Amino acid sequence: MTAAASSAPPRADILLVPIALGDRSYDIHIGSGLLADPASWAGLPASADALIVSNTTVAPLYAEALAAPMRQRHRRVLQLALPDGEEHKTAAVLEQVYDTLLGAGCDRKTVLYALGGGVVGDMTGFAAACYMRGVPFVQVPTTLLAQVDSSVGGKTAINHPLGKNMIGAFYQPARVLCDLDLLATLPAREFSAGLAEVIKYGPIADVEFLAWIEANLDALMARDRAALAHAVKRSCEIKAWVVGQDEREGGLRAILNFGHTFGHAIETGLGYGAWLHGEAVGCGMVLAAELSARLGLVDAALVPRLQALCRRAGLPVTAPPLSALPIERWMALMRVDKKAEGGEIRFVVIDGLGRAAMRPAPDTLVADVIRAHAAPG
Amino acid sequence: MTAAASSAPPRADILLVPIALGDRSYDIHIGSGLLADPASWAGLPASADALIVSNTTVAPLYAEALAAPMRQRHRRVLQLALPDGEEHKTAAVLEQVYDTLLGAGCDRKTVLYALGGGVVGDMTGFAAACYMRGVPFVQVPTTLLAQVDSSVGGKTAINHPLGKNMIGAFYQPARVLCDLDLLATLPAREFSAGLAEVIKYGPIADVEFLAWIEANLDALMARDRAALAHAVKRSCEIKAWVVGQDEREGGLRAILNFGHTFGHAIETGLGYGAWLHGEAVGCGMVLAAELSARLGLVDAALVPRLQALCRRAGLPVTAPPLSALPIERWMALMRVDKKAEGGEIRFVVIDGLGRAAMRPAPDTLVADVIRAHAAPG
Repeated sequence: MTAAASSAPPRADILLVPIALGDRSYDIHIGSGLLADPASWAGLPASADALIVSNTTVAPLYAEALAAPMRQRHRRVLQLALPDGEEHKTAAVLEQVYDTLLGAGCDRKTVLYALGGGVVGDMTGFAAACYMRGVPFVQVPTTLLAQVDSSVGGKTAINHPLGKNMIGAFYQPARVLCDLDLLATLPAREFSAGLAEVIKYGPIADVEFLAWIEANLDALMARDRAALAHAVKRSCEIKAWVVGQDEREGGLRAILNFGHTFGHAIETGLGYGAWLHGEAVGCGMVLAAELSARLGLVDAALVPRLQALCRRAGLPVTAPPLSALPIERWMALMRVDKKAEGGEIRFVVIDGLGRAAMRPAPDTLVADVIRAHAAPG
Repeated sequence: MTAAASSAPPRADILLVPIALGDRSYDIHIGSGLLADPASWAGLPASADALIVSNTTVAPLYAEALAAPMRQRHRRVLQLALPDGEEHKTAAVLEQVYDTLLGAGCDRKTVLYALGGGVVGDMTGFAAACYMRGVPFVQVPTTLLAQVDSSVGGKTAINHPLGKNMIGAFYQPARVLCDLDLLATLPAREFSAGLAEVIKYGPIADVEFLAWIEANLDALMARDRAALAHAVKRSCEIKAWVVGQDEREGGLRAILNFGHTFGHAIETGLGYGAWLHGEAVGCGMVLAAELSARLGLVDAALVPRLQALCRRAGLPVTAPPLSALPIERWMALMRVDKKAEGGEIRFVVIDGLGRAAMRPAPDTLVADVIRAHAAPG
C-alpha cells in the first residue's frame, strides 16, 4: 500500500494482513473507522456501478456508512437487503442479487460489496463469482466470526435442501475491510461464538497466541479495539498460512476444523439454531482436546485450560445430556461428516500443543470422551 | 499422452489439440470411434461416481454408447436428460443437475460428462464449476458448432430472464472428446450452422485454411470423417491460439465474434429461433466483409468469395428484407450489443485477409452495407 493517492499518511493503528495468491492477492485491513478512511478504498476498482448486498438486520445500522464513501468512487451505488439467517442462504435468494444487477443494467465491471456476516459474505461472493462470469467483490464483515473466518480462504456458497454449502465457488475478494466499530452492535452470544474461532488458532498453531488470548480475554470481552485488532489479525494470519499451503482443500486445511467434528454433531443433532456454530465449536474443542490427551498426544492439562478459557469467553463447555443426544446418534452424525473415510471417523487432534493433525480414533474411546463431558441427564 | 496404460499404440487417425493453461491444461481428442477407444479415457479421474448430463433428443441416441465405457471406470454411472433447447438453459433446470447429484449422494470427486450441444455443455460445465465448489467434467459435444466452439475457451453459463449467458463461470474441462461419429444424426440445417463457425476462422486468422475449406467443402458437406477431423482440429487450434492470449476476454478474443454483431441483430430482430445462430453468423460475415471492403481494409473480392462459400455450405447469404428488419432496428440492436461503447458501434473487420481487428464505423456506411445485402421487400 502506498500513500500516494491519499491526502494523509497511512494510519499507524490500522493493521494489514496481505494474502498472497498470485494475481488474486488481496489485503485484509483491520481497525476502527475503516469505512471513512480513504486508505481503505485506495486501489480498488472505481467502476460506474456498485451494489451493496446486506441483510435486513445490518443494513439499517451500517449500509449508509458504507454507501457514503462509495458514492465518491461509483456513479451509482445500489443496495439490496436480503432476509437475515442461514435458512435464506438459498438459490432463490441468490437470484434476487442477479435480478437486482440485471434489472439495473449493471455491466461486467460492477463491484459487489458484502456487508454482513457469513451468510451475506458467502452469497455475495458466490454472486460475484458468477455474475457475467465474475465481477470484483469487497468483503465488509460485520460479525467477529466472519472477520476471522470468512476473510481468508475464498470459500463462497449457498445451501441446497440436501446439504449446506453444496453449491459454490472458490473466489477471492479484492479486499476485506474488518472494521471493528461494526462489532459494537453484535449480540453478546454471537460475539462469544466468534471468539471460539479465535481461540481455536492457539492450540492448533500458536502457543503464544493461546497465552495472549488468556491474558487479554477481559479486554476482548469488553470489545477493546486494540485487543480485537490483534486477535483478528493473528487469526487471519494463521488461517492464511494454513490455506496458503492448501488453497483447494486437499489436506492441511482440515486442521482448521479443530472441534468441528464434535461440534457439527451437536449442531445437527440438536437441530440447527439450538446452538450457534461457534458455541458448538467451543464445546467441540474441549472434547477434541480430551480425545487428544487420551490418545497420548498432548498433556491432559490442555482440557481444563481450554474449558476455563471457553467458559470465560461465554461459551458452553459441557456437551448436551445423553438424553438429548445419545452416543449412537453422535457416532452416526460424525460418521456422515465429510472427514469420515471408509467408516472410520477422523478427528483433528492436538499433536503437541500448537500443532494439529488428522487421526482416526476407536469408537469406544470417542464414546468415553463424550460421556465424560456430557451434562447429566 | 502416453500409450503405457493402453493395450495398443495410439491410433494414428485420432488428432489431438493440447490446450495449454498451466494446471488447467487439457487435450481435445478428435476422430471416429472415440467413445470405444481406451485412449480417450486414459488419465482421466476414475472416481466412484459419474453423471452423464444430456438432453431428451441426444440421450436416446448416444447415452448408452458413452455409459458403457464409463462403467469400466466408475462404480456408478448416473444419467440425466434435460429438456432440449436454449429456452431451458435456466437456473431451474440447472437445479435438476444438483438435485440428481445430491439425491444420489455424489461426493466432491464425482465426474460430470456433458453429452450434447452447446446448451448441455454450458449447463454441465457450470454445474461442475459450482457443485461442491468444483468437480471435474468432460465434454462430449454432439454438434459441429459445439465441437468447434465450446471445446475451447472455458465459458460456461446459464441464461437469466433479462439476458443470455449472464450467470456463469470460466471453468475448464478435464478433456474434450469430439467424436465425429456423433455428427451422423445431426440435422442438415444444424450442420450448416456449425460450418459457419468453421468458415469464420479462415478470414480472421488463416488464409490457407480458408482455401482448404473451399477445396474440401463437398467432403465436409458429405460429413467425410477425415475432412471433418481437420476442420474441427484447425478451428480448435485457432480458437486456442486466440483465447490463449486473452483467457478472460479483455480484447483479442473479440475477433472470434466476426460476423456476430450483424448476426446478433438478425437473431434478436427476427426473434430467437427464426434463424439459427450459425445461419445469422454466416450472413453476418458477408456483411462484415462488405463493411471491411468499404472501409478500404480488404479487397472487395472477399465479399463474393464468402458469399459463394456460405451458399455452398447451406447458409443464407442475403439479409432479411428491410420490411422485416428496418435499418433503424438494426442500428438499435447493434448499439445495445456489448461491443458498443459510448454509442459508437464497433465491428470485427477483416484488416487484410487472414487478420481481424476491432473498428468503429459511421452509421451511414453501415446502413449502406445492410441495404446492399438485404433481400428485396
